[in-house]
Amino acid sequence: MRLSTVKIAGRTTWGVVEGERFLDVGATLSARYADLKSAVAAGFDGVAEAAAAAAATPVDAVEWLPVIPNPDKILCVGLNYEMHRKETGRSEVENPTIFARYANSQTGHLAPIIRPKVSTELDFEGELAVIIGKPGRYIPYAEAMNHVAGYACYNDGSIRDFQRHTHQFTPGKNFPDTGAFGPWMMTPDELGPLGELRLQTRLNGEVVQEATFSQMIFDIARQIEYCSAFTRLEAGDVIVSGTPGGVGAKRNPPLWMKPGDVVEVEVDRLGSLRNPIVDETC
Amino acid sequence: MRLSTVKIAGRTTWGVVEGERFLDVGATLSARYADLKSAVAAGFDGVAEAAAAAAATPVDAVEWLPVIPNPDKILCVGLNYEMHRKETGRSEVENPTIFARYANSQTGHLAPIIRPKVSTELDFEGELAVIIGKPGRYIPYAEAMNHVAGYACYNDGSIRDFQRHTHQFTPGKNFPDTGAFGPWMMTPDELGPLGELRLQTRLNGEVVQEATFSQMIFDIARQIEYCSAFTRLEAGDVIVSGTPGGVGAKRNPPLWMKPGDVVEVEVDRLGSLRNPIVDETC
Repeated sequence: MRLSTVKIAGRTTWGVVEGERFLDVGATLSARYADLKSAVAAGFDGVAEAAAAAAATPVDAVEWLPVIPNPDKILCVGLNYEMHRKETGRSEVENPTIFARYANSQTGHLAPIIRPKVSTELDFEGELAVIIGKPGRYIPYAEAMNHVAGYACYNDGSIRDFQRHTHQFTPGKNFPDTGAFGPWMMTPDELGPLGELRLQTRLNGEVVQEATFSQMIFDIARQIEYCSAFTRLEAGDVIVSGTPGGVGAKRNPPLWMKPGDVVEVEVDRLGSLRNPIVDETC
Repeated sequence: MRLSTVKIAGRTTWGVVEGERFLDVGATLSARYADLKSAVAAGFDGVAEAAAAAAATPVDAVEWLPVIPNPDKILCVGLNYEMHRKETGRSEVENPTIFARYANSQTGHLAPIIRPKVSTELDFEGELAVIIGKPGRYIPYAEAMNHVAGYACYNDGSIRDFQRHTHQFTPGKNFPDTGAFGPWMMTPDELGPLGELRLQTRLNGEVVQEATFSQMIFDIARQIEYCSAFTRLEAGDVIVSGTPGGVGAKRNPPLWMKPGDVVEVEVDRLGSLRNPIVDETC
């Protein structure tokens, strides 16, 4: 099953994507679920049945919002592919590197990623996002995958000069409209085994990052185990699982995204997240 | 004016603290404000009038919750006093060091700070919290203090081994019930000029940290200016403004907080935040 949060004619709703149709489950189940996060928390109970009877809209007519616009927590994993770790010159560590995004930094599929007026160092980071379903603390490795509600494409857009102002990444990872998340989440039964799936980031059609998920240093189960050791994971929480090598900042010369560019993050079987770059206006 | 979020006989509410009385404004204005954050957003419009007519409860009979239990963002400033920067061996930087706390890591005045079963390295960090009133992005330094709704004591309780697992602090700063915030926020008109106010952290009555706010490397206005460059600040957002030297981790031998201890963060004129330490049970 593929699930999205969207706007239709100015109204925010959520539902199921089937082929080229968006099925407005949010309208049908509004008394039961306030948003997609609530449906995730309930294990999508009743959603497939409601989708079968829901009003359909062509996907071309919806405005895509971040898959989960209001997660309690967005936990980002840094340096989780060997090529990226090496290009940044960081040493090996025994635990995942975790930093935070705030929910207000997110944007949806086809919406612009915004280059802020205070920087030109806007970089791409194609990643797999994991949406938590079943809450938990101290989740054992062997049980971790049972806590996954689904997966989505994510572009952890980064403002590199702000990221490097100090040793803490937070400022460079939280500019408004830089964290692209979509177009949908796909449930694990539909996506299948992650290992050999390929993630690719393309800038203006050219491949700039590519990896399979078997190349992660810390796999998804380990990320869930580790994060749940220091915080209780809730339904709708998002773990953004790290980016492969090839980021623009580590190229010579650096490759920054600029107005007029189009960036895509594609994952085999899961889909493609596409965003134009525009300059901030204010 | 002093404002708190509390529980009375199991019911969560918020209101004004006058002397030894808690005035239950939340009950009176529930149709207008869902919580203290909503009243902050409205500039406390109508709150003083409602307090005058509100039901009073002795402060000894309330259960103190984090002043703002549900901020959109908690932005923590690291290394913001010279003695603390030097004791950590960090180099000087031109911008504040910012990391994030999630709201679920907070606790209230007199509630326990919890030492998790996975670590013994529980450390104190006495700090001044700034609660944002007026939202904004790209707030100029000269206007920044107009965006402050109030101040509170904060204990940015840290799990040092998790903080040092990698170069990113997030895991060590987000354990449940480690970020103590209270007992109240005080509006700027009542607190007066910050500069010569003294912050003191005491562990079992012994002074372990002490500084005046004039010793901050980046003052509150600069923190607001910087944070608002990378994220839109919203009403109820909390900036935790950094801790002075003297943290337990940098003592020889280290001084960790343990069950049975009592830690206090006191700020002149503002008040005192007090928490017992207990071991996690689960």
